Amino acid sequence: MVATDIANRVWSHAFKLDPIVRSLLDTDFYKLLMLQMIWGLHRDVDATFHLINRTKSVRLADEIDEGELRAQLDHARSLTITKREMIWLAGNTFYGKAQIFKPEFLQWLETFRLPEYELKKVDGQYELTFHGRWTDTTMWEVPALAIINELRSRSAMSGLGKFELDILYARAKAKMWNKVERLRRLPDLKISDFGTRRRHSFLWQRWCVEALKEGLGEAFIGTSNVLLAMESDLEAIGTNAHELPMVLAALAESDEELRLTPYRVFEEWQRYYDGNLLVVLPDTFGTSAFLERAPAWLAQWTGFRPDSAPPIEGGAAIIDWWQRHGEDPREKLLIFSDAMDVETIENVYIRFHGRVRLSFGWGTNLTNDFRGIVPERVAGGLEAISIVCKVAEANGRPAVKLSDNPSKVSGLPQEVERYQRIFGRSQYPAREVLV
Amino acid sequence: MVATDIANRVWSHAFKLDPIVRSLLDTDFYKLLMLQMIWGLHRDVDATFHLINRTKSVRLADEIDEGELRAQLDHARSLTITKREMIWLAGNTFYGKAQIFKPEFLQWLETFRLPEYELKKVDGQYELTFHGRWTDTTMWEVPALAIINELRSRSAMSGLGKFELDILYARAKAKMWNKVERLRRLPDLKISDFGTRRRHSFLWQRWCVEALKEGLGEAFIGTSNVLLAMESDLEAIGTNAHELPMVLAALAESDEELRLTPYRVFEEWQRYYDGNLLVVLPDTFGTSAFLERAPAWLAQWTGFRPDSAPPIEGGAAIIDWWQRHGEDPREKLLIFSDAMDVETIENVYIRFHGRVRLSFGWGTNLTNDFRGIVPERVAGGLEAISIVCKVAEANGRPAVKLSDNPSKVSGLPQEVERYQRIFGRSQYPAREVLV
Repeated sequence: MVATDIANRVWSHAFKLDPIVRSLLDTDFYKLLMLQMIWGLHRDVDATFHLINRTKSVRLADEIDEGELRAQLDHARSLTITKREMIWLAGNTFYGKAQIFKPEFLQWLETFRLPEYELKKVDGQYELTFHGRWTDTTMWEVPALAIINELRSRSAMSGLGKFELDILYARAKAKMWNKVERLRRLPDLKISDFGTRRRHSFLWQRWCVEALKEGLGEAFIGTSNVLLAMESDLEAIGTNAHELPMVLAALAESDEELRLTPYRVFEEWQRYYDGNLLVVLPDTFGTSAFLERAPAWLAQWTGFRPDSAPPIEGGAAIIDWWQRHGEDPREKLLIFSDAMDVETIENVYIRFHGRVRLSFGWGTNLTNDFRGIVPERVAGGLEAISIVCKVAEANGRPAVKLSDNPSKVSGLPQEVERYQRIFGRSQYPAREVLV
Repeated sequence: MVATDIANRVWSHAFKLDPIVRSLLDTDFYKLLMLQMIWGLHRDVDATFHLINRTKSVRLADEIDEGELRAQLDHARSLTITKREMIWLAGNTFYGKAQIFKPEFLQWLETFRLPEYELKKVDGQYELTFHGRWTDTTMWEVPALAIINELRSRSAMSGLGKFELDILYARAKAKMWNKVERLRRLPDLKISDFGTRRRHSFLWQRWCVEALKEGLGEAFIGTSNVLLAMESDLEAIGTNAHELPMVLAALAESDEELRLTPYRVFEEWQRYYDGNLLVVLPDTFGTSAFLERAPAWLAQWTGFRPDSAPPIEGGAAIIDWWQRHGEDPREKLLIFSDAMDVETIENVYIRFHGRVRLSFGWGTNLTNDFRGIVPERVAGGLEAISIVCKVAEANGRPAVKLSDNPSKVSGLPQEVERYQRIFGRSQYPAREVLV
């Protein structure tokens, strides 16, 4: 007797929407931490976010149906944080601390919904823009990216038969597990999942997280995905992102104020968070300019996340800076999170293990690495692209990111030039941005 | 909402037996062809079959629980051929021919059940013996082996968690598919599944068959497994086996009669079958002795299955023999079926493609190749062993197999010696029997 779950089968054939984002907690934890601060200190600021597909060769508007995209975005807008999610946010311990989210903030969050979006097709790409209060638009970044990326892989896979899909996921699992077995050889490794925004799909991210939990044990310290952290009783991981200095910089009234913005952000941050949440993200306008003028109190923070700098050089520069400030790097934390994969993790680990506390945020190459295992005719469609959702304006004023990788610069040319006058140009050469 | 099929879940936890053999057609097709002839010409002959585990290092009685083994064997004894199976056997076309099975035979088969078995533990191994009419005992060979092999893999896997199993099968699928992709590069390849008896499990064999069907298309010509052929609308593949000459040889009344037995078998065979079923299996008492005295009419048969000879040398010897008989080898068929795997298939293909019609029967290395993909602590338990179920006696007289590989000799030493006096010793050196 062949056992078929009839209800399930009928549902599979008849449902109108297979939602990609099913919960507002299906986002990165740092979004919530930042949101609490934005809501506390900048609740009247408007911020415009927009989608940037850096992989121009991929014409998203040809791959993804506009109707489907709208349906997914609309579905995400219908979500509110559920009762049990609210209870968990209020009752759970994050980074070893209870009640990290204040009752007033949670009360506001309870009725939160994603704001409107603007969508149009231009030259084979989607222009997807979110206007409104920063507190609202910031929350679109992760779900918008996850939706685009999963619609893209669904579209690529729509040409595959059931058996080809079986092979595809078998190979993806085998590939992923080979990575786990390599990472297992690094003693004291600390690694977390940072792969929500560019994941192949929600289910695949969940499987990858399960694989890290099963395969790495203690070395797997958690996931940036709040929903997965809640469902799997994992630590939610994350601190802060470039949007904080970007928005505050856009609002700066003078060059001098602009120059100080990168530090002001962290002054504000420590009004809200402490301990292991005190992690500096130094590269928004270039790490070398940041370190040159950084106040001494930042050397006492737990660590740095040298995001876009080449990891070995970037890490070494920060260690030097700590030493100049009389800090012992072995008590400090470096979190590497830019385009990590097994090989880069191994290299960084070999270079820094024992010299500094190390942690890795593994993103796109964890949750969306189907390279080399896909039937040729759909291979391109399952290759991860470099797509981001960035602040473009704050209160109508243009926002800029310089980054340590000149390929990641964003902003209007004349504004970028002004920022470069103030912060200097990147000391690092441009490196291709693959993911 | 997590969708759980409650009935299925409860059943999974409560069932007493997960049967390995669920149908009498879950056997090799050649068993049915031979059975029709045995029933027609030798229905009063008694034949004893017994299990031989050539991989002595594996102590089967330590790995497999006796109660479970008895339960599975008992379950197989409860089976009869079902109505729809009978209809299919009667109505289907085999090797392009309708009504290959005669109505009288099918009528007898309709009430067939597997006969009793004798089981005891001796020195860490199971002595499993089947006494009775040849028509009955012959049918135990394949299910008995499939049961032992699957119980063995179940036992090995009982120590694995759900996630480890997920990885295991993902890797097995990826490994299998890599083989398929290699085989796909060989134009005009003809290959079939011969992996029933030593399969990892029924479900895994079914998946492998599905993979060959999906991946090789026309190159996959069918399966020896009658049940899978029926269920998947594939060709049932197979002709005859060593037990025919072994039994007839045991019954021979003189050395001269013994010497002629290998040819008498095929005289009988052609009273039942023709066309592509006229395939010579020459190696029971050594291929060179067989060819030396083989009658000319055998050169007109469709092909040979040079089983235990080293494939390149064995194939070449048969081609020479055809040429000596004025036959064009390009119109003749060679079927290779001994311990084939991708590499041996490629080698044989490269050597013979274009010189002869080629076909491969892919057995243990198709349906039970978990080498290199299993967690270390259970690796041994999932490594295929060389286990066979052979005729030991016919009407109380000892049966012998010499084979082209001295490691595969079976029979009482003094009888083996007598056979070697008559047929000569193998011209080939002993090769380790892995599967």
